[in-house]
Amino acid sequence: MEASGESFSHASRSEVAQEAPRYTARLLIGCPDRPGIVAAVSGFLFAHSANIVDSHQYSSDPSGGRFFLRTEFFLEEPFDREDFQQGFQAEVAADFGMDWEIRWWGQRRRLAILVSRHDHCLLDLLWRARRGELDAEIVSVISNHRDLARETEAAGVPFAHVPVERERKQEAEEEMLDRLHGQADLLVLARYMQILSGEFLERVGMPVINIHHSFLPAFAGADPYRRARERGVKLIGATAHYVTEQLDDGPIIDQDVVRVDHRQSARDLERVGRDVERMVLARAVSLHLDDRVIIDGRRTVVF
Amino acid sequence: MEASGESFSHASRSEVAQEAPRYTARLLIGCPDRPGIVAAVSGFLFAHSANIVDSHQYSSDPSGGRFFLRTEFFLEEPFDREDFQQGFQAEVAADFGMDWEIRWWGQRRRLAILVSRHDHCLLDLLWRARRGELDAEIVSVISNHRDLARETEAAGVPFAHVPVERERKQEAEEEMLDRLHGQADLLVLARYMQILSGEFLERVGMPVINIHHSFLPAFAGADPYRRARERGVKLIGATAHYVTEQLDDGPIIDQDVVRVDHRQSARDLERVGRDVERMVLARAVSLHLDDRVIIDGRRTVVF
Amino acid sequence: MEASGESFSHASRSEVAQEAPRYTARLLIGCPDRPGIVAAVSGFLFAHSANIVDSHQYSSDPSGGRFFLRTEFFLEEPFDREDFQQGFQAEVAADFGMDWEIRWWGQRRRLAILVSRHDHCLLDLLWRARRGELDAEIVSVISNHRDLARETEAAGVPFAHVPVERERKQEAEEEMLDRLHGQADLLVLARYMQILSGEFLERVGMPVINIHHSFLPAFAGADPYRRARERGVKLIGATAHYVTEQLDDGPIIDQDVVRVDHRQSARDLERVGRDVERMVLARAVSLHLDDRVIIDGRRTVVF
Amino acid sequence: MEASGESFSHASRSEVAQEAPRYTARLLIGCPDRPGIVAAVSGFLFAHSANIVDSHQYSSDPSGGRFFLRTEFFLEEPFDREDFQQGFQAEVAADFGMDWEIRWWGQRRRLAILVSRHDHCLLDLLWRARRGELDAEIVSVISNHRDLARETEAAGVPFAHVPVERERKQEAEEEMLDRLHGQADLLVLARYMQILSGEFLERVGMPVINIHHSFLPAFAGADPYRRARERGVKLIGATAHYVTEQLDDGPIIDQDVVRVDHRQSARDLERVGRDVERMVLARAVSLHLDDRVIIDGRRTVVF
Repeated sequence: MEASGESFSHASRSEVAQEAPRYTARLLIGCPDRPGIVAAVSGFLFAHSANIVDSHQYSSDPSGGRFFLRTEFFLEEPFDREDFQQGFQAEVAADFGMDWEIRWWGQRRRLAILVSRHDHCLLDLLWRARRGELDAEIVSVISNHRDLARETEAAGVPFAHVPVERERKQEAEEEMLDRLHGQADLLVLARYMQILSGEFLERVGMPVINIHHSFLPAFAGADPYRRARERGVKLIGATAHYVTEQLDDGPIIDQDVVRVDHRQSARDLERVGRDVERMVLARAVSLHLDDRVIIDGRRTVVF
Repeated sequence: MEASGESFSHASRSEVAQEAPRYTARLLIGCPDRPGIVAAVSGFLFAHSANIVDSHQYSSDPSGGRFFLRTEFFLEEPFDREDFQQGFQAEVAADFGMDWEIRWWGQRRRLAILVSRHDHCLLDLLWRARRGELDAEIVSVISNHRDLARETEAAGVPFAHVPVERERKQEAEEEMLDRLHGQADLLVLARYMQILSGEFLERVGMPVINIHHSFLPAFAGADPYRRARERGVKLIGATAHYVTEQLDDGPIIDQDVVRVDHRQSARDLERVGRDVERMVLARAVSLHLDDRVIIDGRRTVVF
Repeated sequence: MEASGESFSHASRSEVAQEAPRYTARLLIGCPDRPGIVAAVSGFLFAHSANIVDSHQYSSDPSGGRFFLRTEFFLEEPFDREDFQQGFQAEVAADFGMDWEIRWWGQRRRLAILVSRHDHCLLDLLWRARRGELDAEIVSVISNHRDLARETEAAGVPFAHVPVERERKQEAEEEMLDRLHGQADLLVLARYMQILSGEFLERVGMPVINIHHSFLPAFAGADPYRRARERGVKLIGATAHYVTEQLDDGPIIDQDVVRVDHRQSARDLERVGRDVERMVLARAVSLHLDDRVIIDGRRTVVF
Repeated sequence: MEASGESFSHASRSEVAQEAPRYTARLLIGCPDRPGIVAAVSGFLFAHSANIVDSHQYSSDPSGGRFFLRTEFFLEEPFDREDFQQGFQAEVAADFGMDWEIRWWGQRRRLAILVSRHDHCLLDLLWRARRGELDAEIVSVISNHRDLARETEAAGVPFAHVPVERERKQEAEEEMLDRLHGQADLLVLARYMQILSGEFLERVGMPVINIHHSFLPAFAGADPYRRARERGVKLIGATAHYVTEQLDDGPIIDQDVVRVDHRQSARDLERVGRDVERMVLARAVSLHLDDRVIIDGRRTVVF
């Protein structure tokens, strides 16, 4: 209860859509570190009358390491996106051997979700998308079970059932690839209990984020809550990471833990674990969509 | 992803209903502290062949303080509930001046919810009830707005719209009392933005739990996120408490905080705050339903 | 700064010694679970006019599991300790096959510490002992290096240098056993960088607590901070556990984590890790000394 | 214990002194926000062959707000510090109306400490300074009591006893000002229980950091632990802030909390509180010394 009625404004269901732009574009750069990078980039931006709103940089090692930059800026005057991008490539990026990417305000990405039967991560992402918390549109949910069809469709998102039978796993992956190619920009495994093949990962052509229900690298693999209880740990956790061919070993985006005690059964750990899982996955997906995560070998830089 | 397919068993939607009993009854006691209480209680239980599964006790002060006990036990042999309760009153409780309560396994309570327009706490409680995480049935949702009718009804819960107009607040409270009396055992304010009158609280006849979106006693009253941002705090929080006539001053059941920084706008604080609010409220409601919370003056004992 | 001068009372250096007793004795019990244990124990206590101050119990499984009880009580009337203990064994413990222990108020234990060259855990324990935070006396510090002699002796604690040369490890362990036998009740490894042999552990005759600088079971073994950084984890931790012959695998008493990010070097992780290590070790030692930890196979019950 | 002996290198007592430089200089800027600031600064740095190692910026509002920048860079070629600074003022700073500061690698600041009788914050700072964790030299400890003289002097730091009698507070403050002027760059109140006058704060001429033993703004003023216990909060905290004339209301640098429960007495809260206090104060002092904190009105920007 509050003293003054409903003075706290109701957050609209399409918060992001209605918001005033907080930047014109976001520029992400990775390149071998050497002097002059920031001067070149900011000189180019200044020449285009850009006003930098937010900027972070990181160098894995100033001599011989890799340089990473994330900057958000406003362009007040009229400009042509194509010209701007070509200019940046020619005048700055080519010289420094930059990998770079630009994202303009309002360019929302398309998110596809793989899920099995646990509903908590899926429902949480659907709710956050609807609230406008995620800067993305959820375009499809694919599952090897039918359990979550009704709830997915109630949220206005198409649901596809792609069963994974033991001898027909390759066909199932082919069908999923067909449904994903050209349709999505990010794939999220929201407690998907099948292992994706190296071939699938190679061909899918978009980043894949998974939530693992342990504090990796502890309890990688199956049944982490049971093993955590047997080992008698005092904290259980969850880890969101990019998926690589090496099981549960991809670059970690975020993780968190919660305190547990001897009184809690494996089922109790599962219950409290669900809350950590959905929080950590949502944070990781948001960080990715806000272009705050850059992969640096086996690790991530999170700005 | 896990190594071994779906070995992690799917938690059923009616977990609790299908569970084997974890106790026969739960006994809660509060009385003036003096020697012999535990001996009398456990002697009575032993005479009825009870096997104590879990037991906690606390004394606010061994000389002249108040004694609190929560115990769960199995009764293996056939027995009559009425006889058991009358026996306990006559043989134990009367002598020590005990306030006591017994809850038999399977006696689920009825939960009513008041909400305004924020959906996060309501949806979280509806989801947890459906998952069987709450040992209660949600019997009605009452709101001063119509916004959340559709989602409440989709969850199979009756929704009532009781508008609160400035001059007709008393009538609105009368209508709510009519809808609650005899229908519910616990009232949860899941971001209800109207202040309930002292008369309402006196007449409602059941505990009322509220979630306040700050770390009380900091920022009691309205608009805590804006005030937290202005004050430049580095952590924001949420507090679940029993409602008393004194605004935002009732006994605290649970609270938690999350770290924030200068980059976050008041709207960002609102977003991360929503996650803390729904977690803290859910924990507090669960603690209450598990009979783990005993009020001790302005404070709570949480076993 | 505070509004009213020094109203916050200065905690004396021998807080515990000067405190009024908070209980007469503490009773710890472990036995096969079956009905009647609590009734028998509390009946015995009541017959001796005991007033129970605090009591917790836990059963690993009500049918066929193990029962654990920790209770603190006052005995108001004069009594003989020897009689009380013999009576409890004869009238209660024998019947239920109890392992039990009683600790009378003021019976402080003797704590010995093994340390190598890192000073943070040692200094923290010395400071807490002096403040009266630990219900124990630190009776000796043994190290395989001379670095920490001066600081140990400045705290009034005897320091012994027992070098561990590669071929003479057994002799070193013999010397340590000589220094420990009959001199101490608990051995704490405060960042001791040598592995103790199974024979040492068998012969030492007292519990041994170690602090490992990772969130076990992640990064068991050497160099956890370097490996944590390479793996790119977002949280680093520390784990206090009882030492068993199986390296880094003994029952966990307490653990905690702290958030880190990509900017932090392995040396930075070491720095923040030191704070977690000393906090977790101090909590674990306090829990042990307060008789709150009971070993249950590979796990601990922490009351 | 670790598998491989002492492979984890011992951190030397003068870590910082022996470290290779991690930057040549650190530049801090605050000015009204407008386009071109970053371009001008990085252009100037590039013209001096600087390689930027780390850079963060923040704008309180891109139109009409205030811009803050913290950058660390290497200068590989020989240069003159005086020329560099004059050049920056003339070519960049004057134009944008910048408040700016440059700190060269190795320029350690002098830290003075005020303390009353609680030793935990003082000892922690002395230990961290000796370990090289703080980029500063502790040059003096001033206290209104004699209790902590011996330990201060054992750490090789001069101790001054300046008693504060009720009618002679002004004289005491004069004496402290004499001891501080020109002798220190930062004043830390490590549980100093006297209120400093507005005149003292105005004349001291250096930033003053205080640790308050509550989660401000909750329980501002005296006796926060007692009041926290009476209110029945479930978390207690500590807050480090710059001191202003308004008691307990200065800009917050860092805060943290720890979970407590009903079993803990006010003295127990004091004990666990001590650990939070020293951690939060140490973090705040480190952040200040690393030039990561910029005051923005009533709030701080922490890079």
